[in-house]
Amino acid sequence: MSFDHRKYRPAAQIAIPDRQWPSRVITSAPDWCSVDLRDGNQALVEPMTVQQKLRMWDLLVKLGFKEIEVGFPSASQPDFDFVRALIDGDRIPDDVTIQVLVQAREELIVRSFEALRGAKKAIVHVYNSTSPVQRERVFGMDKAGITAIAVQGAKWVRDYAAQNPDTEWSFQYSPESFSSTEVDYAVEICDAVIEQWRDSGRPLIINLPATVECATPNIFADQVEYFCRNSRYRSDYRVSIHTHNDRGCGVAAAELAVMAGADRIEGTLLGNGERTGNMDIVTMAMNLYSQGVDPKLDFSNMDEIIAVVEHCTTIPLHPRHPYAGDLVFTAFSGSHQDAIKKCMARQRDDEHWQVAYLPIDPADLNRSYEAVIRINSQSGKGGVAWVLENDFGLQMPRWLQIDASRKVQAEAEARSGELSPKQIWSVFEDNYLAVSEHCALHDYSLRQNNDKHGGRDQLTLHFNQFGSEIAVTGTGEGAISALVNGWRQRFGDTVEIIDYSEHAMNSGTESLAIAYILLSINGQRYIGIARHRDVVSASLQAVINAAAQSLHQRQEQEEVLESQAG
Amino acid sequence: MSFDHRKYRPAAQIAIPDRQWPSRVITSAPDWCSVDLRDGNQALVEPMTVQQKLRMWDLLVKLGFKEIEVGFPSASQPDFDFVRALIDGDRIPDDVTIQVLVQAREELIVRSFEALRGAKKAIVHVYNSTSPVQRERVFGMDKAGITAIAVQGAKWVRDYAAQNPDTEWSFQYSPESFSSTEVDYAVEICDAVIEQWRDSGRPLIINLPATVECATPNIFADQVEYFCRNSRYRSDYRVSIHTHNDRGCGVAAAELAVMAGADRIEGTLLGNGERTGNMDIVTMAMNLYSQGVDPKLDFSNMDEIIAVVEHCTTIPLHPRHPYAGDLVFTAFSGSHQDAIKKCMARQRDDEHWQVAYLPIDPADLNRSYEAVIRINSQSGKGGVAWVLENDFGLQMPRWLQIDASRKVQAEAEARSGELSPKQIWSVFEDNYLAVSEHCALHDYSLRQNNDKHGGRDQLTLHFNQFGSEIAVTGTGEGAISALVNGWRQRFGDTVEIIDYSEHAMNSGTESLAIAYILLSINGQRYIGIARHRDVVSASLQAVINAAAQSLHQRQEQEEVLESQAG
Repeated sequence: MSFDHRKYRPAAQIAIPDRQWPSRVITSAPDWCSVDLRDGNQALVEPMTVQQKLRMWDLLVKLGFKEIEVGFPSASQPDFDFVRALIDGDRIPDDVTIQVLVQAREELIVRSFEALRGAKKAIVHVYNSTSPVQRERVFGMDKAGITAIAVQGAKWVRDYAAQNPDTEWSFQYSPESFSSTEVDYAVEICDAVIEQWRDSGRPLIINLPATVECATPNIFADQVEYFCRNSRYRSDYRVSIHTHNDRGCGVAAAELAVMAGADRIEGTLLGNGERTGNMDIVTMAMNLYSQGVDPKLDFSNMDEIIAVVEHCTTIPLHPRHPYAGDLVFTAFSGSHQDAIKKCMARQRDDEHWQVAYLPIDPADLNRSYEAVIRINSQSGKGGVAWVLENDFGLQMPRWLQIDASRKVQAEAEARSGELSPKQIWSVFEDNYLAVSEHCALHDYSLRQNNDKHGGRDQLTLHFNQFGSEIAVTGTGEGAISALVNGWRQRFGDTVEIIDYSEHAMNSGTESLAIAYILLSINGQRYIGIARHRDVVSASLQAVINAAAQSLHQRQEQEEVLESQAG
Repeated sequence: MSFDHRKYRPAAQIAIPDRQWPSRVITSAPDWCSVDLRDGNQALVEPMTVQQKLRMWDLLVKLGFKEIEVGFPSASQPDFDFVRALIDGDRIPDDVTIQVLVQAREELIVRSFEALRGAKKAIVHVYNSTSPVQRERVFGMDKAGITAIAVQGAKWVRDYAAQNPDTEWSFQYSPESFSSTEVDYAVEICDAVIEQWRDSGRPLIINLPATVECATPNIFADQVEYFCRNSRYRSDYRVSIHTHNDRGCGVAAAELAVMAGADRIEGTLLGNGERTGNMDIVTMAMNLYSQGVDPKLDFSNMDEIIAVVEHCTTIPLHPRHPYAGDLVFTAFSGSHQDAIKKCMARQRDDEHWQVAYLPIDPADLNRSYEAVIRINSQSGKGGVAWVLENDFGLQMPRWLQIDASRKVQAEAEARSGELSPKQIWSVFEDNYLAVSEHCALHDYSLRQNNDKHGGRDQLTLHFNQFGSEIAVTGTGEGAISALVNGWRQRFGDTVEIIDYSEHAMNSGTESLAIAYILLSINGQRYIGIARHRDVVSASLQAVINAAAQSLHQRQEQEEVLESQAG
């Protein structure tokens, strides 16, 4: 068969022109139900072992899930054994309710109650398929036949629950393939099920699955709102939503469905599940969190969640997975890095989060800021400055940020790859600090005497000028000024200080100072940067580094001219 | 900092109670613009090499993209060189327009026009940031200052275009961070830009980015509809949408935005891009396709797309990526497999696609059906029957499907992993065919004479019964009936044929026939299955396999009794 769109039909529109959901806002978290151990498990190439299931269970409980679907025990012996292990091993906290899925068939319902024997609380989740394709092509039945299956299933669930009075039962029904079912028929079959249950005194749930996602998420929201407004018994049950991600919109569909009236969301951690996956509860909960809504789940240790999910599913996390992937808080682009750096500098602890390009603070998920800004050929001064500040304590002046980022970008282009913080430091060191070796300050004496020299500082120093020792003596207001004045006299240069700054690179007595100076010498600009334990030495060395480069250039030019003359 | 939702604020609601988009349906594809080579590239740990970029370019052209953003040449020398390579290498088809991104700064705009010199058609895409956070915390400017930057940028673009009259220019402006910008201000600044451009005679585009996805997708759609309804010059330009996926809803936001009035979509193949990625054009286009809308892009060779994207981004595709991932058309669950098998059997070529659990036909993307049904401990009879039919040509009767799937499921549980088709065949062979070795048919003679024996068939055969040769002679209507009657006489058993079927396993003269027989012998059921070149031999061997097992069981029981008696 060929690539031909004409073999598909559009999804049906829902007749609900007065829909209310688009104006609604989610202001509290829905009830969450994890289906990692059921829908997530049944979609794996290698279903979880008991050991993997227990690790997932422990994580789900720790994160704060209060309802957890633990399997389909009537269809699978390993699922049966796992449910027994939870109950017999007394692993279910009092505030957690387990849920099992079962088809509307008596022997499977009986077997499910066997699996659940001794549970303190449990949800029996019965389903049958309701869409036209399922009715006509899979079951060969009309609506009445399908409804009869659901009603009979509901009766069995009610009756077997009554025979097992030691457990607090809840009942849940799913019209499977709800998203492909005529919504009026979905209302009809669910109401027929509720009629069997509403006098039982049990907590009831109607779960509306997008078993296959088959329309834009607004249509699903329309279906849910229509359902909620037209069911006769809406106040008797919670409405649960169970979306899949076939069109890449499983989270959107669930969010809009909550706006449309749903109370409860079934999904999995990081979206594992049949085909394209179930609704990702991490993403949806963090979406709420990022809007100031308490998600009622604790995702602060994201790395642990990732580790357990990868262990249990053996599917590696995608690096762009919302909130969790390796790259999702990273900016490589220069303008993004610049903006993040500026916003982070202005962000106060007592105000709302206002940082460009970072929808939430990575620290909330126990992520370091190191991953936020990474440097390659697309990066600019903000990013380079960020890395040198965060990793090496440099507070570079703006002119140096520009100069340094050009040198780093050139290096990144040459390597056509990412530069690590260490490699960036090497670029910085090679370009700005290495020169100190060729023009090292040997000694200096600095005297301030308010009586002599008109209250000015008097400086004498010796430094190595690419092999030969040179002495400079000068006076001025402060050591730098004295050195610059001395240099002017010694070499006849025009020297101007364009900018100067200095800071400690870290705290403590062992701290190094670093000085940044931008000189104009005979009309040309020279950068001088130097580190030293002593703040004065750092400043002097920085001036020497800049000035000595100028001198060295002239000496080299003179040699060229002399050799040409010779 | 701790996990505390209170540091975030909800997104602003848009005052548009009479919104129209929720009732709209997308009936034709938007204009697509690939930004793989710009936004996709700038988000990579290792930006693409020229070779990788050219491979991506060739793919994009082949898929049918008519607008392709090729880089940010004023900010990156590799981008500049790549744009030159496209133009100088004459690689741009006449119906494809390249686009370059540039900030609203004169020297960068000048450089961009240098990069584009000689292009037949090009879009100059200028932007500046407009959100409150960007204005206040990054640029330290008020709205008037930000608008002035945009207007000045628009003038430069217009004027430098006029100086380069050999290219057919289009102009595009993005209010970057649109999704976080007050929508009234977005209208104001875009209208101010359009005022600079509307008399230029150039095709114009206003691009509305969700630079960071920061609200549910309905809010983004409200923003877009509000924008379209309030801009003074809406008819002068196309509205383009550029969403990111920070909340996992980038595709949903783009789809709802098209319903809200957008004409054009920027995105990337498989969603590569900054942080959580750009809008995935494969997903959105295939979503349209699955609704019967011509996507205007050819994704029939999905494997090639995946190979090129993985090569260029060095990010592996997630196995659950919509339409493209390895697992997205796979069903492991028994009930899903059953339904797919039934629907596929009923699906006709001349009708719309109606297959449960498969939103589209995998064959459209050049995917084989082999991936659709895979077998592990979660699987049932439908899946096992599918594999044995598709891979080995078996058309098993229902009773055999049930029996075989139990044996396969037990094997899968024992291995706690997936079973390959070959492993499933081994289970079948070991359980049903291996017995032929212990009771092989040696020879038979079959005579039909309407004069003798009352017109019935007369059969004589010899077979090996676990070591000893046994002869059976009988008459009946047909060979099987004759063998069964002979067996009754020879051993005194009660034998009934419950079901029988036989078919060729493949076409051609070399084809094997396979016969399936279910016998009741002395009240117990026995399955007999046999393959042979000769259809009669296959049938006889199948009967012998069933009956000989019964005989062997009795002989073993007798031996046990004898040894106990002894």
